[in-house]
Amino acid sequence: MAGGPAISRFPVPELDGLPADLKERIDAVRAKTGFVPNVFLVMARRPDEFRAFFSYYDALMLREGGLSKAEKEMVVVVTSAANQCPYCVVAHGALVRLFTKDPRLGDELAINYRQAEVGPRQRTMLDAALKLATSPQTFGDADVQRLLAHGFSREDVWDIGAITGLFALSNRLAHLADMRPNEEFFTLGRGAQPSSSSTRTS
Amino acid sequence: MAGGPAISRFPVPELDGLPADLKERIDAVRAKTGFVPNVFLVMARRPDEFRAFFSYYDALMLREGGLSKAEKEMVVVVTSAANQCPYCVVAHGALVRLFTKDPRLGDELAINYRQAEVGPRQRTMLDAALKLATSPQTFGDADVQRLLAHGFSREDVWDIGAITGLFALSNRLAHLADMRPNEEFFTLGRGAQPSSSSTRTS
Amino acid sequence: MAGGPAISRFPVPELDGLPADLKERIDAVRAKTGFVPNVFLVMARRPDEFRAFFSYYDALMLREGGLSKAEKEMVVVVTSAANQCPYCVVAHGALVRLFTKDPRLGDELAINYRQAEVGPRQRTMLDAALKLATSPQTFGDADVQRLLAHGFSREDVWDIGAITGLFALSNRLAHLADMRPNEEFFTLGRGAQPSSSSTRTS
Amino acid sequence: MAGGPAISRFPVPELDGLPADLKERIDAVRAKTGFVPNVFLVMARRPDEFRAFFSYYDALMLREGGLSKAEKEMVVVVTSAANQCPYCVVAHGALVRLFTKDPRLGDELAINYRQAEVGPRQRTMLDAALKLATSPQTFGDADVQRLLAHGFSREDVWDIGAITGLFALSNRLAHLADMRPNEEFFTLGRGAQPSSSSTRTS
Amino acid sequence: MAGGPAISRFPVPELDGLPADLKERIDAVRAKTGFVPNVFLVMARRPDEFRAFFSYYDALMLREGGLSKAEKEMVVVVTSAANQCPYCVVAHGALVRLFTKDPRLGDELAINYRQAEVGPRQRTMLDAALKLATSPQTFGDADVQRLLAHGFSREDVWDIGAITGLFALSNRLAHLADMRPNEEFFTLGRGAQPSSSSTRTS
Amino acid sequence: MAGGPAISRFPVPELDGLPADLKERIDAVRAKTGFVPNVFLVMARRPDEFRAFFSYYDALMLREGGLSKAEKEMVVVVTSAANQCPYCVVAHGALVRLFTKDPRLGDELAINYRQAEVGPRQRTMLDAALKLATSPQTFGDADVQRLLAHGFSREDVWDIGAITGLFALSNRLAHLADMRPNEEFFTLGRGAQPSSSSTRTS
Repeated sequence: MAGGPAISRFPVPELDGLPADLKERIDAVRAKTGFVPNVFLVMARRPDEFRAFFSYYDALMLREGGLSKAEKEMVVVVTSAANQCPYCVVAHGALVRLFTKDPRLGDELAINYRQAEVGPRQRTMLDAALKLATSPQTFGDADVQRLLAHGFSREDVWDIGAITGLFALSNRLAHLADMRPNEEFFTLGRGAQPSSSSTRTS
Repeated sequence: MAGGPAISRFPVPELDGLPADLKERIDAVRAKTGFVPNVFLVMARRPDEFRAFFSYYDALMLREGGLSKAEKEMVVVVTSAANQCPYCVVAHGALVRLFTKDPRLGDELAINYRQAEVGPRQRTMLDAALKLATSPQTFGDADVQRLLAHGFSREDVWDIGAITGLFALSNRLAHLADMRPNEEFFTLGRGAQPSSSSTRTS
Repeated sequence: MAGGPAISRFPVPELDGLPADLKERIDAVRAKTGFVPNVFLVMARRPDEFRAFFSYYDALMLREGGLSKAEKEMVVVVTSAANQCPYCVVAHGALVRLFTKDPRLGDELAINYRQAEVGPRQRTMLDAALKLATSPQTFGDADVQRLLAHGFSREDVWDIGAITGLFALSNRLAHLADMRPNEEFFTLGRGAQPSSSSTRTS
Repeated sequence: MAGGPAISRFPVPELDGLPADLKERIDAVRAKTGFVPNVFLVMARRPDEFRAFFSYYDALMLREGGLSKAEKEMVVVVTSAANQCPYCVVAHGALVRLFTKDPRLGDELAINYRQAEVGPRQRTMLDAALKLATSPQTFGDADVQRLLAHGFSREDVWDIGAITGLFALSNRLAHLADMRPNEEFFTLGRGAQPSSSSTRTS
Repeated sequence: MAGGPAISRFPVPELDGLPADLKERIDAVRAKTGFVPNVFLVMARRPDEFRAFFSYYDALMLREGGLSKAEKEMVVVVTSAANQCPYCVVAHGALVRLFTKDPRLGDELAINYRQAEVGPRQRTMLDAALKLATSPQTFGDADVQRLLAHGFSREDVWDIGAITGLFALSNRLAHLADMRPNEEFFTLGRGAQPSSSSTRTS
Repeated sequence: MAGGPAISRFPVPELDGLPADLKERIDAVRAKTGFVPNVFLVMARRPDEFRAFFSYYDALMLREGGLSKAEKEMVVVVTSAANQCPYCVVAHGALVRLFTKDPRLGDELAINYRQAEVGPRQRTMLDAALKLATSPQTFGDADVQRLLAHGFSREDVWDIGAITGLFALSNRLAHLADMRPNEEFFTLGRGAQPSSSSTRTS
């Protein structure tokens, strides 16, 4: 961080002073990813909230179900872009690239998902997520029916809605803290070959 | 529930089949409150998410800090009203009444907090919360400074923002599930005497 | 009013000094209701406007026609909630409770009528009213046809639209004067039994 | 009307069958103006509402007070333009031209009052009126203070707000009925000489 | 201009000092129209931009194709009205009057095109133009298909969209410069007889 | 393009059949950039519009003045992001990276310029540009004064506004054609070292 802008407008604790379980989680993510995503550092100042947030994250994002990992990340990018959240768009845009092997889809979704290379199933998913993100009071039975008609199960509908909800929280925490994305996220997954994969048209 | 509308558009599990810790939490809340708020039943279908959600809730809402219990509930009611969330407005409007002993403040905040009987400190808090709830991308240093200038500590700012974030999630879960408030919440705390208490003008 | 906040940001005249017809109307409403709704006191400073306003009110709200008294009040609550008008939402929410014997419907309509316990006929009525209230320039033949298709007569359509219009005026007068609801309205009609009546699903 | 589009989507009664007081008012306006503005014909189908509406209109628009006739019409044009109401913009744009002798001010106000040739006093009046027309829930003490600081009396503030309210009603009635302006209004007052009068800069 | 308000908030060059081609174009328009529309004077300060702007204008507005001159001007008026651009609405409203011989259509389109006397083909054209003007990110294949279904060719679709785009630029230049319409435009074409021509219902 | 999605929803002409001047321009840009940006191909179907568009582009973007090349591109990216225009955001985001040597600034500006690493001068420029792009009717003297107070000259103000206007056009052309960015733009300039350069804080 030295020399660059702060990653949060709130104080960021030293890793050494953190509770063991936080430290363990952070070490694990560094071991896997090669760096510590800033969200772990920014949230660490409130250990109970850190635990609750990442438990929720794991419960939804690691859950096996009808949505692919890539589809979950698409929901995150599109709803976070509507909230203009730099951390979430940049970090999860990288995950879209990694999970789809498509070096452009993250940016396409962040700028205007209506023109992104996704098929009708995913377009329907993103329409529903965006509606729940930006005008939740109008989300209703018709939206659920549209998702079911495109082959999503009722559990998938919950996943789409709950991930949208979790990032409604996450985006606001990021704006509260003025949380900045790690530099690594900007370039991750950009080297992949232009894709003609089924991901783009599923 | 028999005879009335469903409390969720998703299946609600039987209490008997729930994991012990969920059952325990639900029994505890019934013992304390006299009934089981529907959010516990609606969320119980996904035990991991139930645990994460209520851990987060406890971490923020039970935390000792610069915000009073009543002030936290005010943030919940105003931001949930902006999202037109029946469950959150009705249930937490009741808590505003209980914590302030003011039988009208919950409705006033739900309809138009700008005209509610709150003082400048609380008005500033609610302005910031509403901004983070409805246009989070414009929340910035000036908003934080305004809160600090009204006597909120930096930890209070985090609390205001994080509670706003948690109910951004909660409102969307409630709209996802079409979650309905318990009848009890509509009348709770309405019997209190009209208040001329300091709560209204602090 | 002593000790509480003012009911208007404009001076409120003494009852004794009012023209006889205003005094008579106010006495009549007190005799019937048990208290004087603040709108009569706030409007009394301009006797000609008082007379015109309540003549209009009577012409629409007391008129016999295809809309029930409860349905007229539903239009008032939903459009006034969109304008976040405390006086109109609280006072007419009470009337919804009184006319439907449903202690919850007023709040449900005020928070999010899309999730309130009303049937398709009333939902269509409220959709049209809200559109005319909030984006009147888009109200057109298709909206009229939709109402007719749900069994409303052409005169009912006029009533729905004109009541919406009258409260577009009323809400703005209330915001102009910062008019406050009487305490009595907050609790009126809340004691009724939870309803499984046909009102909720007509 | 023969050969042209209808002036209302509701039936328009024959003049002969109207109650005497309506007929008298309509005859009077024809005698004065040379034609019958369509609003009188469109409203005549509901005599009680006709009476109430024009009583209210007279009470505000004919009232002697701090606002000039031209200023009252400016409020009407700007708020009606925000609601995109053809009848009100065209008819009252003509009155702006007649009262100011300025053949362009009506159109300027209808298109973008921020660029119209009005002075700071009138600009402040129009800002307040537009706010009350389009986001009444945010109208507050600061808006009243701003008007008072520009030399408006408290009664003037009421007039500005009440006229805004009356045309919030009027615009919605016009949209309800798809009411069309008389041809005469389009050209009335356009022949006046370009004005360098004090009206434009008062 | 002497005695009146400035036509631009930027300096307007003397005609004598302009490059020959600009002078020639301005002389030609004066010869044809009888006055120099202010846009030529306001843009002349940047000759290269003047040339590019009017080349673009000519390429689209003078192009022979499926759209009539009147229809092109309708697109200009409706999209410029959405941007509340005085110069473009007044000047091109005059052209609508001249091309249609209808003295009212320009004002009708400027106030609320949904109620203007245009047929379904033109209504569809204006819906598409307004969408591209005000929420371009939602313009998509369905909009193009709707235009084709109403008899527009693919080249017509381009023309509608490109004219909308050119005036998105033009409106912003006019707001940048606070550009004022010539007095002549306010009255041009108002003398024509009320039309029962096919233009109104094509 | 073979195998990938089309770059336009309108036919794209063969290069061989183009007028000589278009072909020359396209060859020149290929020689300089290494590939032909799609905008040249998409616009080529209408040679006169092609010439006008790129003349305008050159007049503004190549003009020597108070704005740096990087600042001009910032205006393009921020206003195009507000219009959710994939081509403009991706292509000009690449130019921001190239001109600033900052591999992250393009994405930061596209997601939320309020949190991007720009100084107060550039923040003021972007605030003004965004206002003119999204609510041009409210752009006024106060906005111009704010720019002048931050050291921009009157000519710079014109440049900021005119570039905003040109891309209001360009964004709508891109949405009209569903124009897709070249793959090359997604990665261009991402290899530069993380910058601590003065660009980020000027």
